[in-house]
Amino acid sequence: MTIGILGGGQLARMIGLAGIPFGLQFVVFDPAEQVGGSAIGRHVRASYDDEDALIEFAGSVDVATYEFENVPVHAVSVVEQHCKVLPEKTALHETQDRLRENQLFNRLDIATPRFCVVDSRQDLTNAVETLGYPIVLKTRSGGYDGKGQVVIRSEDSVESGWIESAQDNLLAEEFVPFDREVSIVAARRPSGETVYYDIAENVHRGGILRTSFNRPGDPIQGLAIEYVNRLFDELGYFGVIALECFQVGDSLLANEYAPRVHNTGHWTIEGAEASQFENHVRAVLDIPLGSTASRGYSAMLNCIGALPDRDLCLRVPGVHFHSYDKSARPGRKVGHVTVRADSPADLERRISLLPDFFSGAGDAL
Amino acid sequence: MTIGILGGGQLARMIGLAGIPFGLQFVVFDPAEQVGGSAIGRHVRASYDDEDALIEFAGSVDVATYEFENVPVHAVSVVEQHCKVLPEKTALHETQDRLRENQLFNRLDIATPRFCVVDSRQDLTNAVETLGYPIVLKTRSGGYDGKGQVVIRSEDSVESGWIESAQDNLLAEEFVPFDREVSIVAARRPSGETVYYDIAENVHRGGILRTSFNRPGDPIQGLAIEYVNRLFDELGYFGVIALECFQVGDSLLANEYAPRVHNTGHWTIEGAEASQFENHVRAVLDIPLGSTASRGYSAMLNCIGALPDRDLCLRVPGVHFHSYDKSARPGRKVGHVTVRADSPADLERRISLLPDFFSGAGDAL
Repeated sequence: MTIGILGGGQLARMIGLAGIPFGLQFVVFDPAEQVGGSAIGRHVRASYDDEDALIEFAGSVDVATYEFENVPVHAVSVVEQHCKVLPEKTALHETQDRLRENQLFNRLDIATPRFCVVDSRQDLTNAVETLGYPIVLKTRSGGYDGKGQVVIRSEDSVESGWIESAQDNLLAEEFVPFDREVSIVAARRPSGETVYYDIAENVHRGGILRTSFNRPGDPIQGLAIEYVNRLFDELGYFGVIALECFQVGDSLLANEYAPRVHNTGHWTIEGAEASQFENHVRAVLDIPLGSTASRGYSAMLNCIGALPDRDLCLRVPGVHFHSYDKSARPGRKVGHVTVRADSPADLERRISLLPDFFSGAGDAL
Repeated sequence: MTIGILGGGQLARMIGLAGIPFGLQFVVFDPAEQVGGSAIGRHVRASYDDEDALIEFAGSVDVATYEFENVPVHAVSVVEQHCKVLPEKTALHETQDRLRENQLFNRLDIATPRFCVVDSRQDLTNAVETLGYPIVLKTRSGGYDGKGQVVIRSEDSVESGWIESAQDNLLAEEFVPFDREVSIVAARRPSGETVYYDIAENVHRGGILRTSFNRPGDPIQGLAIEYVNRLFDELGYFGVIALECFQVGDSLLANEYAPRVHNTGHWTIEGAEASQFENHVRAVLDIPLGSTASRGYSAMLNCIGALPDRDLCLRVPGVHFHSYDKSARPGRKVGHVTVRADSPADLERRISLLPDFFSGAGDAL
């Protein structure tokens, strides 16, 4: 049995590592020359508009999935004519435009930050009037890791913000003074079973995720489950999904969903009975899903730009090191480290023992 | 950084799965056409006496190790002229002959069953007189999974046992009426750090390992550590080692050691903070070793001859499925299942929910 993955980066790599123990083979499709996913299977190197390559890829696998949300919907349309693709492409389509995504949330009674469409300079002025400062001006499509976003905090920065943005096809959102950022990662399989991980509390800096902590027994878990269930139902979704929210008091405002395994679920590799990667594989194969129960307390710390000193990390008990085998580059996620412990106090102590590379990582504890 | 592995079976496969997250590449060397290890790296298919192939293999890796104890010592001698090999070949040499191995144990004050060398029919008669019935007649080299062993229980079966055996280069051992079989898996790295997993209690049937249970806090742990330390010291050993013993009362009689990751340590993948495979990689690279602390209670159940119904297994919480991607064949280890739980009672309950394939697996609980 062979699983094809559109996208061959670290998420494909970790899906493969979780799937090989099931006796599965993997093929990854990615235009890049060097991909971390090549460690776990054959790499088809081709552009997403190369239909012949897509057809060859689809013909060599039993089922296909994707590891990032910007896979062109057209590519999935080609692939699904030759093999099953899960999750179905609707989930890609809905999330590839922030306006459509926000409208979907609101249609499902999932609260979001207030937002306005901005297609002109005048729209921006109107948005400022409607939403008040600060506002977040975002491209409607193609953004990731804080790219394609600019925060406008006052009259003074409207013009510069407008120039810095793509100036077209934008969305303005109110800046939410959130108490914290949380996400829920969940999996559903075609036979109907659904499982949910404990929510993660996340810290971003410069638009890039820095740390995620699992939060067993959190009071907001129930609401997060309710929201993600509405997405599953509406999208006819099978596989792992992640929903990122701002928490304000007892309410959650949806920021975005990702139709794939998610950075805020990496802690599940060591911190849950079965990882998000394993459950994605199980969901795509439609076989019984694994327990999502947390095993103690975990912190996932991203390695941005470069890897920390590996040996200094490994001296700390409960540390698990994940290199994506990518070259160092500013702002690039090249690996992550998970710290696991049986108590919050032990977790805090272990994080404090990490090298300076991660200074401040424990602030959200 | 690339690690080469002599032998490309399931142990190489699991070493690779543990090492890829460190950003490592793997090359496996194995004469077989299809090997499970090819999922995690390049497969050099050649005979162990093909020096050119061994040299090419050695030239393509930074450090080499092995995944089974019957790798010809000569092959390692060739490889080590071109790259570092850990553990060093002494450990292979000493264990490839059961007489030499028993003599090593006794030299280190590690008790063994009483034994006699048997090179003739007369030797066998003498051995029976010395040891009494039943005796175990074993080939001195090449045996595994109960192959190359015959139990002689009475005068009536001496002749048939003699005929069934290789009739040469044999060892007769007293049959030990053991209370249980236990093993310890441990790792040492060149910089000196040594770590020990909780001992496993093992059940063999027909000479093949069926189940292993970790035994946190077992009173025999200290003696097992003492014995394995003597082996580390004597052999100048770096990497993971396993020592299998019979327990009789408060004493341990060494049966054999394996200079490699070991079937009775497979439970550590999910049942310990860092697995034996990860620690073998860390030891071979001489980087800080991972915590061997058990995470709850684990049972490892071998899949002999064929795989059980995967989905029936996966319906049981805490079950982890490992296919080695090998074709079914009577007596062949083609996979294993680990059941993990936070309490012995939960573990027992979960084992009882497994499909009939594993009936009797919980008997040693």
